[in-house]
Amino acid sequence: MKLYTFWRSSAAYRARIALNFKGIGAEPVPVHLRRHEQGAAAYLARNPQGLVPALELDDGALIAQSLALIEYLEETHPQPALLPREPLARAQVRSLAYNIACDIHPLNNLRVLQYLKQPLGHPQATIDSWYRHWIGVGFAGLEQLARRCSADGRHLHGSTVTLADVCLVPQVYNARRFDCDLAPYPTLVSIDAALSQLPAFAAAAPERQADAE
Amino acid sequence: MKLYTFWRSSAAYRARIALNFKGIGAEPVPVHLRRHEQGAAAYLARNPQGLVPALELDDGALIAQSLALIEYLEETHPQPALLPREPLARAQVRSLAYNIACDIHPLNNLRVLQYLKQPLGHPQATIDSWYRHWIGVGFAGLEQLARRCSADGRHLHGSTVTLADVCLVPQVYNARRFDCDLAPYPTLVSIDAALSQLPAFAAAAPERQADAE
Repeated sequence: MKLYTFWRSSAAYRARIALNFKGIGAEPVPVHLRRHEQGAAAYLARNPQGLVPALELDDGALIAQSLALIEYLEETHPQPALLPREPLARAQVRSLAYNIACDIHPLNNLRVLQYLKQPLGHPQATIDSWYRHWIGVGFAGLEQLARRCSADGRHLHGSTVTLADVCLVPQVYNARRFDCDLAPYPTLVSIDAALSQLPAFAAAAPERQADAE
Repeated sequence: MKLYTFWRSSAAYRARIALNFKGIGAEPVPVHLRRHEQGAAAYLARNPQGLVPALELDDGALIAQSLALIEYLEETHPQPALLPREPLARAQVRSLAYNIACDIHPLNNLRVLQYLKQPLGHPQATIDSWYRHWIGVGFAGLEQLARRCSADGRHLHGSTVTLADVCLVPQVYNARRFDCDLAPYPTLVSIDAALSQLPAFAAAAPERQADAE
């Protein structure tokens, strides 16, 4: 397998954590987002959406979208599991994951920040405020949910690593990168700290990737 | 079951389609987004993220996030299915669904358009351009994928209704509402037209809801 990835992409970071957690080797193929390599004709022919990550299977099939490829890994390599067994618990884990992946991360994506700069013409301070606003709105709700859903203060749901954790750590990384004040979210911060020490998460960190700058 | 819903919410529209498709009755509980009822203390106590839809089970458990509640319905009421059986096909369907749910819809959500108005101070014309820009970027890739993935020109993937279709129809509805030019996306337009005639989709349409204005 190959993973089309960019070291700083939060969505690629999720895919790397899941692959590591399940012990699945995938050759990283860097796609440099700031050089707009995701818009190159050869990449678009494979992945018309032009985003990373994408997982290329050994037969050449491509799965775009981080959560789609992680669900695929979960179905084809069920152990160790990233989803609980019981339907309601699975729904709660997916709810936490989509909370981050659908309602926090998309607003703070590189292409969105670039659009705020041009054509909208906002200075960096306004762009930073935008970033922090959506982190604040999203993390405020997520902090409440973490207090309800975490059983041990070390995982976002229950007491095992799940898809929700796979989404949380890259989002907290990104929030730190934009100097967001995380003091109002102590539960998220301590869960992130515990998870970040796990080998699967540590090895997926942006700075540990071959294409890191 | 109860569905916390708002007639014009794309994400609630998805949930309504899935419930109808599976023939599951759920009492609609309107949450008026423009009156900010999603921010009322009683609702936030149940759903700290403060968004719709959310599905309340008969035992009082709540599942927030449209795609999480639809996956729950799929697991607990497997027939008629919204996902194929084979893992790669499931991944392709989820990839199409997340393409819409993670990369198109979140940027055009009501709360985002409101933020562009205040505090950013943009006039309606700029907000409309923002909306159309992200629809254009998203639909351009999705049109290519539809040509590859649809087997009959009447479904986004294969030749049966899937989770991808459940996400497509509300997004096309929304694009029309903002007067987006859909001429460049003939495959999406004809798939949407075919799906919209199906009873499960027709009955879920915003104008058919009791809280429609």
